[in-house]
Amino acid sequence: MSKVRVHISASLDGYVAGPNQSQEEPLGEGGEGLHDWVTRLKAWREAAGMEGGEENDSTPVVEESHANVGAEIMGRGKFGPATRGPWGDDPWRGWWGEEPPFHKPVFVLTTHAREPLILADTTFTFVTDGIEAALDQAREAAGEKDVFIGGGADVINQYLAAGLVDELELHVVPILLGGGARLFDGVGPDLKLEEIRAIEGPGVAHLKYRVLR
Amino acid sequence: MSKVRVHISASLDGYVAGPNQSQEEPLGEGGEGLHDWVTRLKAWREAAGMEGGEENDSTPVVEESHANVGAEIMGRGKFGPATRGPWGDDPWRGWWGEEPPFHKPVFVLTTHAREPLILADTTFTFVTDGIEAALDQAREAAGEKDVFIGGGADVINQYLAAGLVDELELHVVPILLGGGARLFDGVGPDLKLEEIRAIEGPGVAHLKYRVLR
Repeated sequence: MSKVRVHISASLDGYVAGPNQSQEEPLGEGGEGLHDWVTRLKAWREAAGMEGGEENDSTPVVEESHANVGAEIMGRGKFGPATRGPWGDDPWRGWWGEEPPFHKPVFVLTTHAREPLILADTTFTFVTDGIEAALDQAREAAGEKDVFIGGGADVINQYLAAGLVDELELHVVPILLGGGARLFDGVGPDLKLEEIRAIEGPGVAHLKYRVLR
Repeated sequence: MSKVRVHISASLDGYVAGPNQSQEEPLGEGGEGLHDWVTRLKAWREAAGMEGGEENDSTPVVEESHANVGAEIMGRGKFGPATRGPWGDDPWRGWWGEEPPFHKPVFVLTTHAREPLILADTTFTFVTDGIEAALDQAREAAGEKDVFIGGGADVINQYLAAGLVDELELHVVPILLGGGARLFDGVGPDLKLEEIRAIEGPGVAHLKYRVLR
């Protein structure tokens, strides 16, 4: 059965991006530190088309996170800079250049309609009728595979609050951001979780949970 | 060298007590769920003078948390109910009855002076001149042993923000409280941490950090 999965790096104080996100600092002030543990890994670098990197106790966690994902849903804030409003005549084509690292269908939640954008083997489809419609389309595209909710925090929080997520993995990084985009904001006590596992990696703790129905 | 240590149970959304703390619900709504993992342990029950209980992967973590602690500092909100103001003629004597489970000197931060309270082998000393004065007294009382900052969140956050904590262990419980007393509120990005370890226990993940100078 196809699952809806979330995994994301979070600071110890619960933020998945720092304050003042901008085109220059898409992850906000200090937010780059959230991903130091992963960008040095061979498993991540290979998936991003880069060479080198190390193997450590986080390697199987990252490999598992990439495995069996058939589609991704993201917010407009992950697809592009914080500027909102209509897309304009020369619309933003994502942060990732002409060969994005997704290699699968990506559904972008937005309030402004736009034709699909095809870059190499990634198709970005822009969905304007809400999180459930986006999930229906992503499930259809993913087939037997899982759907990954890629962020940002507000999109993940909406899917969690709506009870639409099956599995949640946090990569807890020993930094404090002191502000920014906070995971679980507005999700509240009705969401019931069960611990699947906790794994220690270098400079990160991987905490995985199942959502109970 | 004597250390200043914090360890506390926290919800996955970062709260160490739920909303609406009261005399009936000292840990706020849902807050009791923070301690299910520990109250079933033999190691905890023995220290609290109770029988029975189980042993599991959390046992050594709890044993270590009790070991080598020579004094505790707590806020008035951990010592008594949320009612503030002068102590009155029949002052509150703690939540723990005539034989409190501390067995060591306890320093209670308060804005209202009061004579020390001696209950069995625990002496509660009330400190009105701030967190540094309380730490000086607690260090003196602890001798070679460590000082434990016992909470609540506001007291821990004050000590963290002031750079006075050496080690921090979070027992992360898979519940969401959706509000209440939040760890790291106001602590901010200047506090630098290094991961010591992550341990999986049943229904809890133990994440331990060293504060870097």
